This record gives sequence, C-alpha cells and structure tokens, in this order.
Amino acid sequence: MSATFPPLAERLDGLQSSAIRDLLKLTSRADILSLAGGLPDAELMPRDRIAVAAAAALSDRSRLQYTESPGWGPLREVLATRESGRLGRTVPVDEVFVTHGSQQALSLLSEVLLDPGSLVVVEDPAYVGALQVFRAAGARIVAVPLDADGMRVDALRELLAAGERPAVVHTVSNFHNPGGVTLAPERRRELAELAQQYGFWIIEDDPYGELWFDRPSPDAVATYSPNVIRLSSASKILAPTLRAGWMVAPTPVCRAVELLKQGADLCGSALTQQITADLLADTDWLATHVDSVRKVYGERARALVSAVRDRFGDRVISTDAAGGMFVWVDFTDGTDTSALLPKALDAGVAYVPGNAFAVSTDYSHSMRLCFTTSEAAVLEDAVDRLARAHAAKA
Amino acid sequence: MSATFPPLAERLDGLQSSAIRDLLKLTSRADILSLAGGLPDAELMPRDRIAVAAAAALSDRSRLQYTESPGWGPLREVLATRESGRLGRTVPVDEVFVTHGSQQALSLLSEVLLDPGSLVVVEDPAYVGALQVFRAAGARIVAVPLDADGMRVDALRELLAAGERPAVVHTVSNFHNPGGVTLAPERRRELAELAQQYGFWIIEDDPYGELWFDRPSPDAVATYSPNVIRLSSASKILAPTLRAGWMVAPTPVCRAVELLKQGADLCGSALTQQITADLLADTDWLATHVDSVRKVYGERARALVSAVRDRFGDRVISTDAAGGMFVWVDFTDGTDTSALLPKALDAGVAYVPGNAFAVSTDYSHSMRLCFTTSEAAVLEDAVDRLARAHAAKA
Repeated sequence: MSATFPPLAERLDGLQSSAIRDLLKLTSRADILSLAGGLPDAELMPRDRIAVAAAAALSDRSRLQYTESPGWGPLREVLATRESGRLGRTVPVDEVFVTHGSQQALSLLSEVLLDPGSLVVVEDPAYVGALQVFRAAGARIVAVPLDADGMRVDALRELLAAGERPAVVHTVSNFHNPGGVTLAPERRRELAELAQQYGFWIIEDDPYGELWFDRPSPDAVATYSPNVIRLSSASKILAPTLRAGWMVAPTPVCRAVELLKQGADLCGSALTQQITADLLADTDWLATHVDSVRKVYGERARALVSAVRDRFGDRVISTDAAGGMFVWVDFTDGTDTSALLPKALDAGVAYVPGNAFAVSTDYSHSMRLCFTTSEAAVLEDAVDRLARAHAAKA
Repeated sequence: MSATFPPLAERLDGLQSSAIRDLLKLTSRADILSLAGGLPDAELMPRDRIAVAAAAALSDRSRLQYTESPGWGPLREVLATRESGRLGRTVPVDEVFVTHGSQQALSLLSEVLLDPGSLVVVEDPAYVGALQVFRAAGARIVAVPLDADGMRVDALRELLAAGERPAVVHTVSNFHNPGGVTLAPERRRELAELAQQYGFWIIEDDPYGELWFDRPSPDAVATYSPNVIRLSSASKILAPTLRAGWMVAPTPVCRAVELLKQGADLCGSALTQQITADLLADTDWLATHVDSVRKVYGERARALVSAVRDRFGDRVISTDAAGGMFVWVDFTDGTDTSALLPKALDAGVAYVPGNAFAVSTDYSHSMRLCFTTSEAAVLEDAVDRLARAHAAKA
C-alpha cells in the first residue's frame, strides 16, 4: 500500500482556516471568560417551542422526504409575507430562496455573480465568512472603511469615479459583524443610487437586523433598489441548528442559485424547514420571543460598553452597541491588540484582535467583543481582567 | 427604478437544470404511474423512531447551537465504528467527515481534487448529480461504459495505457444509479491497483450498498487501496430529511474539505446529526429496520423485472435488480425511448429515457425504471401501460 496520496487541487495552496476559528479553539478553556465568541446564547433559544414544532412536522411523512431545492414551499410563503412587510412591497414567492444558513447564500451567490477577477467591494473591517467565499471565487477584493454610520459610501463613490467597476458590493447593513455599526439611512439611499447608476449588485447581509435594542433598524437597503440581494437568517433569532437562511433576489438570480444548489447539496431538510416555518408564522409568539432576546442582549451590551468606558476612559473609543451581538473597541493609546492577547489570556479573558477582520486598513489597535453569551456581572469581570492585562503590559 | 439587472457570471451560460428534474415536473400528474422517480419510499421511513430521537436531541440545549464543520463529534464516532466494520480496519474519527447528503461531499471534493481542465473518468451511463459538479468544476470528462459487472475497468486500463491521467475516477459501486449493476469483486481489486499505479483518486459513491436483496454487497473498493474516498448516506436507509451523508477519506482530504465546508455553509444541523447518530448507533433496531426495507424493495424489484420480461420478452434486456432502487432496460428492437416517452405519458406511465444519463455512449434504446415507491400490483399495471404504448408506436 502506498503512503503517497494523489495530489490535491493546486489552488488549495492559499486556503487558510478562519483565524477566529483557530483562536476559538485556544480560548475554550474553562478559566477564560471569552468575549471572543460569535455565537447567540443557547439559553435564550426557544427549545420547547422547537420541540413542539418538530413533533408536529414529524406527524407528516412527507417531511421525511427530499424537498424542493429552493426550499419547502410553505416556508418560502411565510418568508415572502415576512419580507413583504419588511420591504414595503409584495415579494413574490419566486423571489425567495431558502439556503443552509446565510453563509450558503453567500457561497452560491459568489458563484452566480462573480467570474475570476471580478471586483468585489467589501467593508473594512469585514465579515470574514464573506471574505472567504469571495476569495475562493477568485474575486479581486477592494475594501471601503466603516465609520460610526457604517460603510463610507463617499469612499465607494471615489472608487467608482476612479474607474473601478465592482460586480458586487457587500454590506452588513445592521449592527455590523465585527464593526458594531449600522448603515445610516441617507447612505442606504446613496448606495442604492450608485448601484443603479453603475450597474452593480448589492448583497445586503442582514442576520442581525431584528436584534435592535432601543429603536428598529432603518429601512432595508433593498427598499431603495431592485439591484439589492437581501440575505437574512433564523440563526440569531431562533436557533442555528435549523440552518435556515434565506435570500430575497430577482427571479433570474434565484433560478441561477437553484441550479447551483442542486449540485451543492440537492436540497435542505424538510424537517428543519417546517420547524422554521411554524415558528416564523406564529407571529404573536415570535414577537414576544424576539423581544425577550432583545431585552437580555440589550442589558448585556449596555453592561459591557459601560464597563469598557468606565475601566478604560479616553484610552478607548467603543461603539454604542445599539443591537446585534458585537462591540468594536479602538484603543487610542497605541495598544497593539495582537500583542496584548497572550497577556489577556493569562489574565483569563479572550477577545478577537481587530486585524483578524482587516482587509487593507490597519486595525492593530482594535478588538471585537461579543456580549451575547455572558451575564452582565461576568462581562464586567471580563473587562476588569482585560484592564489588568492592559495595565500590566506597560 | 431600472428594470435592467446587473449581469450574472459569464460561465453560467452553459448551466442547465437536471433533465430528470425537469421531467419529474411533467410526470407528477395523478393519472400517471411514475417509474421515473428516484426517491426512497417515505412510507418505509422510521418516522416514530425519528420522533423519539428528535425529542431526545432537543432535551440538550447545545443541540440548538452551531456545531463543528466536520460534523457533530458523536455522529462521527458512530460512523467511524460503522465504517471500521465495513472496511475491516480501524477508521479513525479524523478520517470521517459529515456532509449535507453525499451530494455535498461530491461538490466539495470536486473543489478539493480538481483544477479546471483536470480529467475525471465517470461511468456511462452516469449519475447526473456527479456529472453536474464535475462539469461545474471545469473538469474534462471521459466516460467508461458499464456492463453487467459494473465499470468496464478494461476500458479504463486502455485509457491509461493511451496516456490519459485522471485526477479522479468516480464509481457508483453498488446497485448503480441509473445502471442497476454492481462492480464485480475482481474489478474492484483491479481498479484499486490502477489507482495506486497511476496515482489517481477513486470516489466510491455508495448510497445503495446496504439495500441488497439476496446477498450482501461485495467488499468496498476502499478495502483495496488508501487512494479511495468512500461516500455513503443515511438518505436511503433512514430518511433524506436528515441530510446526513458522510465521507471516509485520508486526513489531508478531510482537512481541505473542512476549510471549504466553512465557506459553503459553516456546519450542519446538530439536531438532525444527533437524530442520525441515535438511529445508526441503535444497531439491533437498525438491522431490523433495514431488513424490512430490503424485503419490501426486493419484492417490488422482482415484480417489476418479472413484468418487464413477461410483457416484452426478448425485445428487452433488463438488469436483475439485486439491490438498490433502479432497473435498467435496453430495448433490442430498435425502440427509441425518447420518442416513446410522450406515448407512454399518454398511456399513463413515466420513465427516464437512457440518454438523460448518457455521457458519450448512445443510450437512445434504454430507460431507467425505479421500483421503490409503488407496490407490486401498481408496478405491473405500469408495465402493462408501457407495453400498450410500445405496441401502439408501430
């Protein structure tokens, strides 16, 4: 028997695991308070309601079978109703496509919208799951920085004026991962106008929009232009185990994605899709449930931001955490967050250094903190530990 | 608002929907007895056992969360034990990777093993789901015909002798879809030796191997060489809704697939993966369950083959249907099965013409019949209808 295996594909050479994933493997020690995660809190997920829905789904044998590639019909109908409300127009079922989490939509869309060498504009710092699929598609990637109002659309306008012609502009429009910020309404309108003027697709990646704390998220970018492909997900409001993401897109895009979905994995699970449909259609229950998640995450977010501002004062600038799952912190005192990390781990706290999300901007003085899975007192303890590590570094 | 959308990727131009899928849309009429399908029978799926497992899985909140990209640990362990028994060696968990059905393994492997222009050898007639992903990967595809003993390995040997150097050889080793035949043991050994000698990967695609009727399937191709990547699935023995396929492959292949899985959809569903693990680990129950499926499918297969031979006599050559889900029938009287199809639909019966699966061989006188979802009397009625359509064609 030969110990030498046949070769793997050459273009795999550059493929790397997510830096965050590798880091998380190191920070699962029981003595470390982790602000490095990116998971919703399983304690807040509606387990009992899911169990009821699972039992109901399994009363019908046809839920055991293969289902349609674009998603189980009744789930697409529930999503069409839901997105019609969100977008202020009647969204036909043909424009709704169910994916295995939003990540699959990003992956299939990168095949549908991009040829090798196509230009993709992303935000800096970027959602690394999007970056990974755009890179795998062989796209040329240019980043536009975020500020407190989200993507710097003025910087995008400059790129376009300089002759750049993106195929796709990707934005996490609400409560950005990792940046924590939300794209301002006037910038949404401006971004949509640029898409029409220059003929590019916008991927509006919106898994967090429902998780607002004080006031609802602004109107979706998709309300301003038909050039927008809107992604959302049940993972953050219900449970990741449902693996239910969805896309609202013009019919030709949905049909192209359908052909690729057949090759990618044939179809989703009729069982988890019926559970998802059941919970999303139960609108009174859903409103109460999402409110309860907002309330808990909001308390945690405020506790984290208060502790950071209290312990670090003017040595940091932190986002406000008006929703979502993340706070982004910039050190103003020259602290290098990659260099600080080993000391922080020694002090018993973990976070993700900003450069893990950097495309072309230097985020060596920044970090992402996640507030979803710890209670307020634990978050305060974690920030105390971080402050001790920071004080000891000098 | 512009009605002109931005362009889709240029290479989508050649992408086509599966001919079978489009056909199935036409043959779902209630008055048509369909032998055209390719689904396992939902009536035989273990709904109650799945419901018990679902309730058990949902008693643990961590099953609601994201899970590991290579699959939920305990499922991988159950699969490692199962495949160790099958392969006659200890399969480490690191060599087991859970995918969203076998189709996702094919899709991710085509990215891992193929560069554009790589040569892939497939069987003729071919499993169209494999053909689709190999084509999407930009592979050059060469087909080797099947005969009653499976892939004509002598034809592969000739290709190799002529200087062809495949990256991958794909085989559906047991109860071929669509060809109905099983690769003979001596050919398995010979194929494995060629893989070692010439340094190519074999993808042994085995969703049907457990569904033998009279005697167990031969030893897996993977028992003869480490160059084999073995795929299997719970869809045909448990239920497609679990979307649980798996791959046994050398660790470097699993690691490369893991990186791509993160980009493709992050991870599978911990809920459906725990259900799958629960049922596969319940070995006494499983043996009884699979036996009952074998018994029913075996009766249906024999009824179908008997009816075909009885009604058509020496105007056809039919496979024996020793397992799996399909019978392959060649007309010896010059009947063109694509031309016959509209007349068959008029007579109230559907099948898939052989050319839907053809790569480079003419299968215009062949057809694929599926026996899984109809009782014997219905299958006999369907063949009667087919015989009437055939008699009327002259």
